[in-house]
Amino acid sequence: MSNLSRRNFLKSTAALAATGALIGPLAACKNFNVNTKSGHSKVMKMRVSSQELELKHTFNITGFSRDVAYAILVEIEYDGVIGYGEGGLPPYMIGQNIETATAFLNKIDLAQFSSPFQIDEILTYVDGIEPGFTCPKSAFDGALHDLVGKLLDKPLYTLWGYNKENTPNTSLSIGFDTEEMIRQKVEEALPYKIIKLKLGVDHDTDRLLVNTVRSATDKPIVVDVNQGWEDKHYVLEMIHWLKEKGVVFVEQPMHKSIIDDMAWVTERSPLPTIADESFQRLTDMPRLHGAFHGVNIKLIKCGGLREANKIIATAEALGMKLMVGSTIESGLAITAAAHIAPKMDYADLDGNLLISNDGYKGMEIVNGKITLNDLPGLGVTKI
Amino acid sequence: MSNLSRRNFLKSTAALAATGALIGPLAACKNFNVNTKSGHSKVMKMRVSSQELELKHTFNITGFSRDVAYAILVEIEYDGVIGYGEGGLPPYMIGQNIETATAFLNKIDLAQFSSPFQIDEILTYVDGIEPGFTCPKSAFDGALHDLVGKLLDKPLYTLWGYNKENTPNTSLSIGFDTEEMIRQKVEEALPYKIIKLKLGVDHDTDRLLVNTVRSATDKPIVVDVNQGWEDKHYVLEMIHWLKEKGVVFVEQPMHKSIIDDMAWVTERSPLPTIADESFQRLTDMPRLHGAFHGVNIKLIKCGGLREANKIIATAEALGMKLMVGSTIESGLAITAAAHIAPKMDYADLDGNLLISNDGYKGMEIVNGKITLNDLPGLGVTKI
Repeated sequence: MSNLSRRNFLKSTAALAATGALIGPLAACKNFNVNTKSGHSKVMKMRVSSQELELKHTFNITGFSRDVAYAILVEIEYDGVIGYGEGGLPPYMIGQNIETATAFLNKIDLAQFSSPFQIDEILTYVDGIEPGFTCPKSAFDGALHDLVGKLLDKPLYTLWGYNKENTPNTSLSIGFDTEEMIRQKVEEALPYKIIKLKLGVDHDTDRLLVNTVRSATDKPIVVDVNQGWEDKHYVLEMIHWLKEKGVVFVEQPMHKSIIDDMAWVTERSPLPTIADESFQRLTDMPRLHGAFHGVNIKLIKCGGLREANKIIATAEALGMKLMVGSTIESGLAITAAAHIAPKMDYADLDGNLLISNDGYKGMEIVNGKITLNDLPGLGVTKI
Repeated sequence: MSNLSRRNFLKSTAALAATGALIGPLAACKNFNVNTKSGHSKVMKMRVSSQELELKHTFNITGFSRDVAYAILVEIEYDGVIGYGEGGLPPYMIGQNIETATAFLNKIDLAQFSSPFQIDEILTYVDGIEPGFTCPKSAFDGALHDLVGKLLDKPLYTLWGYNKENTPNTSLSIGFDTEEMIRQKVEEALPYKIIKLKLGVDHDTDRLLVNTVRSATDKPIVVDVNQGWEDKHYVLEMIHWLKEKGVVFVEQPMHKSIIDDMAWVTERSPLPTIADESFQRLTDMPRLHGAFHGVNIKLIKCGGLREANKIIATAEALGMKLMVGSTIESGLAITAAAHIAPKMDYADLDGNLLISNDGYKGMEIVNGKITLNDLPGLGVTKI
């Protein structure tokens, strides 16, 4: 199919509208209608929009600082039922912003598919339109799954045969700050059973942060180094020290391209090592097998729930651990990720707790535990 | 849970009945009721039975010859709906016969599960009761999937997002015979687009069989050596010769335990190599990656459809080819296997065509192609 036929007149118009919207002020949730038709039609119709997420606190991780975040939204309508999906657009997903994500989504031509139940073919087609663009792909995937779940009147976890009681506790991330602020954040994190710390700043800062948190609470700590350490001997030494401090696992200690040294570390590590930046998609798994004990699944990295379930199966084949993470997103994307949580060893689904204008209610954290509801599809309602 | 509490009185009775039945003549389909209760109850009830399958022709493959086959049958009832599953019991699945399969199934205690939708937990529990017993496990898995599909009123392939139009053609197996009989069998195989030959007898016989079939038809041939060849140089030489004869792939050329020499062959092979005896379950895949181009999924080997779907995901991660095979089974088990066919490169689902008393109608071969219907669950009806 030619680009010309894919980009029909209506879609080009929508793409222009989306691009134009970037010039004006961004509202919290703007809708650009694509192929809009009223009535209960047995064809799939897609709408693309975006939202601006306001952060409660300025967010610092190695290399980035921000107080606002963006996400792309997809609606797919079929037979009078609408599925909703969201994909966060963090700055580290280079080249994926509202403009490019919208342009990508407007290339999707759903007219060639007769039913949303052809998930496998539809998502293979969408993934093949262009490499990358996993953030909008995950928004599309979420909307399609939400739609199918609603059409079957069952929550997604039920359709996949998962038991929602098996979700793990989520960690709550605490960024680097003054000692006083860290103590205050630890206090605010009272309902959470696990504290997540972003390390990789420098030797003294890393140790100060861990020691400060450990002096304020005896909760388990998980550590994300965000590629911050360089020497394998140093990494191993730090992991031994972290284990003494009650740390549970260490995420991405070295640069994402370092595999052999990570295999050396993993072979000797007293704590599980988890790949984040090193791990994007399903086909990365054979290369990481042996180099890390496990992988961090984020829907915006792997392109959505369907591939996430394939990663779960492959991890079982390879004997690897699994965690699910998120970026700063609203409750819509966070809840999508929560549906695979019953199969996870660890979870870091706090992305929506960091924003002040979350327009969606879905998964909730109850006493630190990821708690899914019984509504069909993703189980998310607008608030 | 203790063995004693699992094996409650009713179940022990059923196991005794099943054992006793082996002494008397086997009817085509005998039912032993387990935990039978009438009415539409919201608990799962399981019934185990068995069937004897009469072969149209005596069946010869390397090492075995037989004119009757057995299968174990499972029914799971929930809320007035019944799911059906079957697992063939070929002699090469050592230790799995009607008696042992029935005894295994009678250890299953479904009272601990509130819903058949908890597929993941139920099948993990069943798989964990005892190692092995993948034939009865696949019968149970089939019945549970059939039940869930019927409760959701959708075919299984639809619930998995597969498109039934994407099924491959199945091959039809032709065993070694006189030249005249082989020509007759090729003629009888008219509706089939692919001929499967069992090689591995000896050099002259193997070549004679291929040459005879090739002189009778120009259809693609696939070859199953059933571990029959020994030297890697001979294997490679034969594969080159087979390619010239229009062979499409070669299944299990060497003994199942030979991995390094198979990797040597696969690296050089002009045809895809497919593991059958070397490949039983999901966790075998990392070891076979690089040693074979692909694997032959049989539900009685891997324990059923849920693990089969995990194998499909892992094959995508590892870049391996897939085929689905069967043993001699009725249309019930063959149709279960057909539901994963849309994701297969090759299929060998002729097991029910070889029997004269198939009591089930489901998947059909239409012009050589695996053709699924639109009925819910497995889409199988008793005839």
